Amino acid sequence: MAAKRRNGDFPRDSVEFGRVLAFSDGLFAIAMTLLVVGIVVPTVSDSDSVGELADALGELQSNVISFFISFAVIGRYWVAHHAFFALLKAMDRGLIGLNLLYLAFIAFLPFPTALLGTYFENPLAVTIYAVSVAIVSGLEVVLFRHAHDRGLMRRRPPDDVYRWATATSLAPVALFALSIPIAFVNTTAAACSWLLAIPVFRILERWKPARTEDFLRG
Amino acid sequence: MAAKRRNGDFPRDSVEFGRVLAFSDGLFAIAMTLLVVGIVVPTVSDSDSVGELADALGELQSNVISFFISFAVIGRYWVAHHAFFALLKAMDRGLIGLNLLYLAFIAFLPFPTALLGTYFENPLAVTIYAVSVAIVSGLEVVLFRHAHDRGLMRRRPPDDVYRWATATSLAPVALFALSIPIAFVNTTAAACSWLLAIPVFRILERWKPARTEDFLRG
Amino acid sequence: MAAKRRNGDFPRDSVEFGRVLAFSDGLFAIAMTLLVVGIVVPTVSDSDSVGELADALGELQSNVISFFISFAVIGRYWVAHHAFFALLKAMDRGLIGLNLLYLAFIAFLPFPTALLGTYFENPLAVTIYAVSVAIVSGLEVVLFRHAHDRGLMRRRPPDDVYRWATATSLAPVALFALSIPIAFVNTTAAACSWLLAIPVFRILERWKPARTEDFLRG
Amino acid sequence: MAAKRRNGDFPRDSVEFGRVLAFSDGLFAIAMTLLVVGIVVPTVSDSDSVGELADALGELQSNVISFFISFAVIGRYWVAHHAFFALLKAMDRGLIGLNLLYLAFIAFLPFPTALLGTYFENPLAVTIYAVSVAIVSGLEVVLFRHAHDRGLMRRRPPDDVYRWATATSLAPVALFALSIPIAFVNTTAAACSWLLAIPVFRILERWKPARTEDFLRG
Repeated sequence: MAAKRRNGDFPRDSVEFGRVLAFSDGLFAIAMTLLVVGIVVPTVSDSDSVGELADALGELQSNVISFFISFAVIGRYWVAHHAFFALLKAMDRGLIGLNLLYLAFIAFLPFPTALLGTYFENPLAVTIYAVSVAIVSGLEVVLFRHAHDRGLMRRRPPDDVYRWATATSLAPVALFALSIPIAFVNTTAAACSWLLAIPVFRILERWKPARTEDFLRG
Repeated sequence: MAAKRRNGDFPRDSVEFGRVLAFSDGLFAIAMTLLVVGIVVPTVSDSDSVGELADALGELQSNVISFFISFAVIGRYWVAHHAFFALLKAMDRGLIGLNLLYLAFIAFLPFPTALLGTYFENPLAVTIYAVSVAIVSGLEVVLFRHAHDRGLMRRRPPDDVYRWATATSLAPVALFALSIPIAFVNTTAAACSWLLAIPVFRILERWKPARTEDFLRG
Repeated sequence: MAAKRRNGDFPRDSVEFGRVLAFSDGLFAIAMTLLVVGIVVPTVSDSDSVGELADALGELQSNVISFFISFAVIGRYWVAHHAFFALLKAMDRGLIGLNLLYLAFIAFLPFPTALLGTYFENPLAVTIYAVSVAIVSGLEVVLFRHAHDRGLMRRRPPDDVYRWATATSLAPVALFALSIPIAFVNTTAAACSWLLAIPVFRILERWKPARTEDFLRG
Repeated sequence: MAAKRRNGDFPRDSVEFGRVLAFSDGLFAIAMTLLVVGIVVPTVSDSDSVGELADALGELQSNVISFFISFAVIGRYWVAHHAFFALLKAMDRGLIGLNLLYLAFIAFLPFPTALLGTYFENPLAVTIYAVSVAIVSGLEVVLFRHAHDRGLMRRRPPDDVYRWATATSLAPVALFALSIPIAFVNTTAAACSWLLAIPVFRILERWKPARTEDFLRG
């Protein structure tokens, strides 16, 4: 598990390092913009009536909310992706492959989000959404471990920082997994349980090793 | 409020600074291109008849106009985004988050534009469009203030330049807000009131502090 | 008309020069890929029958041809865009605005292409396609003249090279304009007249000033 | 066939080299993300029923599988494109044109993949998919030969490495061509024959000249 720098790597200042990020950014941007296509302008009988148009738009409410939720969820993962790759000094082919696997689930996310927007009361929709998001968070850990084990990071994180970062990425996996049985009792309770992320992250923030910020600054 | 340069920033020549812009450019490009999907080739009974096809295309007129308006509106924001980020020497995580919020509304804009294209006479459509555009212009001010307060700009703008730039970004917010009550009296008058932007910008241009161009040139 | 280098320009090695190209490339890529969405998998009654599926796919033939024509047409403009911007040492705000106008018609092109694919025998479809393509070619000339007049090119083209390059960009405009009256007599003849581009370009190639290649090599 | 370095080339560190890759990456990202649009949220009569929603989602199964297969297939070609362009020191106009032809088929791939997802038992669907994928693999060889013959590679590959790399790219072409007659006997057998790629690649890996990895490291 010793950090080994291999010749086949693409260093940070290479065209190839940049391409992986350009490709990832393009895919994130498309996944975040596509959902607006699903918000179709409604048809009303009297096109000048405010009341009728308001009613018709009311039915689009869940689509609009679903668009903004999806944008926020995928945007949060983009921020994490941006922060993670900022720590790397190089990529290897394994990381490029794992990144593609991660992006496949990012590209897929608009579907479970739209499903949740339409069937918010249905335990199955909540489950599918929770599983999809848990997979993306889980793959974050896999990417992090791979980069750590192959010595691709600019600086080796101290052991306590590494453990803390892994815990922070795994927390949403555990939280979303826990919400699945809750969803079969009550879907609103399940969605509320996701809000537990806020106190959990606050506690994790308190446990953050002092030198973490130093490490992130590279 | 003193300019403070912090370690967590991503400087202008970093891969991370570039990624935020690549992601933003991708999202702008998609939002501006997507509307063409809404212009569907019509079906006519006699496929060789010029008259029939002309009639069928006549019904698409509002879609075509809506496409070009949307392209112009989002294109104008892209130009502003391009000019604003040209002033920065670095980004921090706060700016990245605010930029995502701004982009969420850019990605959403095709919907209110299409709504306006279909229901141009309806006060509600005019209102939704005016509110959406006012939010984007308002977020421009928020981005500008954040960059200014955190010392992320290449050079601190002189006080008069700063006040003038803020006023220039807030003018469309005020104008669009004012057009909402007008829309409930007469939607055409409301749309015409947007054209007031032209004299307003001309007056603002006359008030522009002499050293603004110097500042923009960096 | 003397070449003047102004302070507000974005030089070739700046982040801002790169953003205009990244945005343009994103928009080209989307416009070229979107049409595949229009090729919908058909429904057949006996899903194992080769004959039925072949018949159903036969009806998609015009969509598939339309996709590849659209890809080729927009791809040809991308190559010209790539070659033109390779000649620049800087951009100014005027060029950025003209580039947006040009891109608006690039983003629009999938619609007239799809229209032509469906109504190949209809003079109106041929006219709309010819006008759209002539506008894009005409805007190429406008971009070239602007860059030339504002001294944005790496090297000033010699007068004969400049005249020759303008003629080469205007030739398709003339050709497409000429094809419109022909379309109202016979659409196939109009489409065939576009093939005149091949001998016209061959003649223009023969007239090419000897130092053109030297100039292009920068 | 001697390597000749020509003046019209775009070297690796030029803006123009980067644009070709940015454009390619954008197109790959769009082609890989677009299919999620095809997975439409189903409508059920009782929106709270797990059973009904599960049944409705069951019918989407082939769309979901088709999305992930398409992502994997195009993703594999993106990895090959990334690895190939990492070997180049420059591009010429011919390579840019061939790359556009290659990308046209990448952009087209979502359609045959969706067709295969819907008509897995139909020999024609299997044939169209096999032909499309064989064309993309074949164009890989054309790109490689062009770069080799025009001296665009950083280092000339030793003869045995060149032959081995060509064989590796042609193997899928042969495999997919062979699967077409099999498909008309049994489509499942044809799909299984694609899995022969695994032992074939393992054998090719054993035949890999020892200095290949050295060459790839540039």
